[in-house]
Amino acid sequence: MGTVYLIPSLLGETEPDHSLPAYNTQVINSIPYFVVEDVRSARRFLKKVNKDIDIDALRFEVLNKKTSPAELSRLIEPVLQGMSCGIISEAGCPGIADPGAVLVDIAHSKGVKVVPLVGPSSILLALMASGFNGQSFAFVGYIPVKPNERKKRIKQLEQRMLTEDQTQLFIEAPYRNLPLLEDLLATLNPNTKLCVAC
Amino acid sequence: MGTVYLIPSLLGETEPDHSLPAYNTQVINSIPYFVVEDVRSARRFLKKVNKDIDIDALRFEVLNKKTSPAELSRLIEPVLQGMSCGIISEAGCPGIADPGAVLVDIAHSKGVKVVPLVGPSSILLALMASGFNGQSFAFVGYIPVKPNERKKRIKQLEQRMLTEDQTQLFIEAPYRNLPLLEDLLATLNPNTKLCVAC
Repeated sequence: MGTVYLIPSLLGETEPDHSLPAYNTQVINSIPYFVVEDVRSARRFLKKVNKDIDIDALRFEVLNKKTSPAELSRLIEPVLQGMSCGIISEAGCPGIADPGAVLVDIAHSKGVKVVPLVGPSSILLALMASGFNGQSFAFVGYIPVKPNERKKRIKQLEQRMLTEDQTQLFIEAPYRNLPLLEDLLATLNPNTKLCVAC
Repeated sequence: MGTVYLIPSLLGETEPDHSLPAYNTQVINSIPYFVVEDVRSARRFLKKVNKDIDIDALRFEVLNKKTSPAELSRLIEPVLQGMSCGIISEAGCPGIADPGAVLVDIAHSKGVKVVPLVGPSSILLALMASGFNGQSFAFVGYIPVKPNERKKRIKQLEQRMLTEDQTQLFIEAPYRNLPLLEDLLATLNPNTKLCVAC
């Protein structure tokens, strides 16, 4: 049986040796099969990590929100037959605010070994840099867009921060950042601390 | 003014190039002043990263749970005077389930630039490897030790997992792992998934 490796990719236009351990390149160079969120950007990432990589000899399959359970069984099949597999998402760590977890789940159900590699996570880097409580924190994904639901959700997260001292992290698409920031400023208590990482 | 760098250390007996980017070594080699959770293990870590480092030329100060606000002001002083500082905790990422956040907070209040570096986080690696939901998750630190409080807390976290589909992560001291596992098995619903990373 092969092994499933979770391979973090780069955040933005950084160089590999800025945010990836040398060991990740060794692992990448040993893998013939990649399950990726987007084939084009995964190929670009692999060439950036190793400019001599024989990219056309590698097998690529797509894993995203639309991937069906039947498709998942097909994706894990080569691993059951002995081929190691690398999961790569668009930015940062596979399975963290990105596709990957469903394939890991099916790998565990088949007794396949899963190895996560170290790399950049925007969530973790933002939390470290914020100076907010890192003894208790939650990542909650996206905040609702509809005004009433949004306001209610922001208040709920603020309440959890106040009663449990739990830092609340969430993400937004770049073009929606400014409206979200305005809504946060209009809704949150003036004493609530806010950190924006981009 | 100097810069405050958050420098992840190693988890267990791994080699630096297994889990730290080459860039971290560059940064470490440029820093004269370290604020650390434990001086002895920080010195050992720095020598592991760079065996030729002139360790006795470096300045070390301690930051842990007992550090007072007055002490924090003293720790940030060299940075205000132009000396860059590296924060190093016992294992993994400073500020994440480890000391560091309070010094980052005071750095921000003084307008000091804070730079988090990439490195291993046991919390993130466990979540990636679990195959559990990484679109919504919480790290809640330690579970209470007293039986009644413990049972209540475990039930509360399970409820949050069920109602919000939020993965719940927590830690325990190694010698308490087995009793915790027994309590989890006795308290959780048989359908609740559990992943143990060690």
